[in-house]
Amino acid sequence: MTTSAVTLYHNPQSRSASTRILLEALGIDYEMALLDFASGQNRAPDFLAVNPLGKLPTLVNGETVITEQIAIVIYLADRFPEAALAPAIDDPLRGPYLRWLAFYAGSFEPAVVDRAYKREPIEASASPYGDYDTVIATLAAQLAKADYLLGDRLTAADLHWGNALKWTTGFGIVPTLPVFMDYIARVDTHPACVRARELDAALLATMAPSPASAD
Amino acid sequence: MTTSAVTLYHNPQSRSASTRILLEALGIDYEMALLDFASGQNRAPDFLAVNPLGKLPTLVNGETVITEQIAIVIYLADRFPEAALAPAIDDPLRGPYLRWLAFYAGSFEPAVVDRAYKREPIEASASPYGDYDTVIATLAAQLAKADYLLGDRLTAADLHWGNALKWTTGFGIVPTLPVFMDYIARVDTHPACVRARELDAALLATMAPSPASAD
Repeated sequence: MTTSAVTLYHNPQSRSASTRILLEALGIDYEMALLDFASGQNRAPDFLAVNPLGKLPTLVNGETVITEQIAIVIYLADRFPEAALAPAIDDPLRGPYLRWLAFYAGSFEPAVVDRAYKREPIEASASPYGDYDTVIATLAAQLAKADYLLGDRLTAADLHWGNALKWTTGFGIVPTLPVFMDYIARVDTHPACVRARELDAALLATMAPSPASAD
Repeated sequence: MTTSAVTLYHNPQSRSASTRILLEALGIDYEMALLDFASGQNRAPDFLAVNPLGKLPTLVNGETVITEQIAIVIYLADRFPEAALAPAIDDPLRGPYLRWLAFYAGSFEPAVVDRAYKREPIEASASPYGDYDTVIATLAAQLAKADYLLGDRLTAADLHWGNALKWTTGFGIVPTLPVFMDYIARVDTHPACVRARELDAALLATMAPSPASAD
């Protein structure tokens, strides 16, 4: 197993906020490479050499660069199993775990972006997600079944989704259904969320003002 | 480990064609639930009860429903390790493997859909993928490094990407760069691709004519 240092390219006002929560929940040491959007560090050549898309989160573990939010979640939670945040490969919950994480990247995020930008829906057959209302209803139906996505047990998928729903309901792109708000409140009291929020607030106070960004 | 039957909800003219290739490569027994788009079986209540999004591929393994293409790839290749199509969790290639699969769902697919429908790009900072040209260039740069995404060794990620690039270059949504065409040709001669193509052609010949669909 690679035991080399973990470095998170991070900005508290970006998608990497979720990744910091997971790193805190795993209880591992990590370094941060803070990217200041105001001075364009996320478009600077040295960061683009790491991730040509210029996106956060980006994670480096030893020689390995990992991009894309859900790849980072799956990677980290599997690689550091002591925290028991991912069902093992032979666990019956493994399939649903991967399903709901991939659903985030492949269905929820494009649906939400299309809605935020008021784009015309495309044909359901060609769309990766079908339609926005069904995506939201599918997620709501799952969260109505139990406290967490996979039942009684919180996993890395919940740490990811709790934060994603907090932002998207906050921006008004996702409806503030009770089932979502209750779930957000439940996840947001996890010690890792509390700690990451405090650390990020302190970090933000040291940074130059920048327009809010979801990079 | 769940050893229950694997059922693939399938249509040869859909995104589930990739999943059939993987199932053939794994060499496992699987059943197929064929969905006829012409008669609307992908919008029928009994299928929507399995996957409310009405999308293919959808996989059932025992009691477990798994949706979303890359969740299915990651799930199957890990669950049936005898075929050695996925780097194990402690393999240094695990991170890149997850990265390029998640890149498909989170960056490539939305970029390609936006391009196919001639949508105006949104701000790079808010977009999950940044911009289309960078997505294509990032993939091309990776494939220029070696025969396969992770180097000399073909993985489930290549079976997925080879088929995805074959369709998207065929539709003219992705440029027919030599690096892509060489890669497609390399993956497409894998015995599993050959076998899945033959089986799907035979299947298609038995089905009622239907408009091409990427559901």
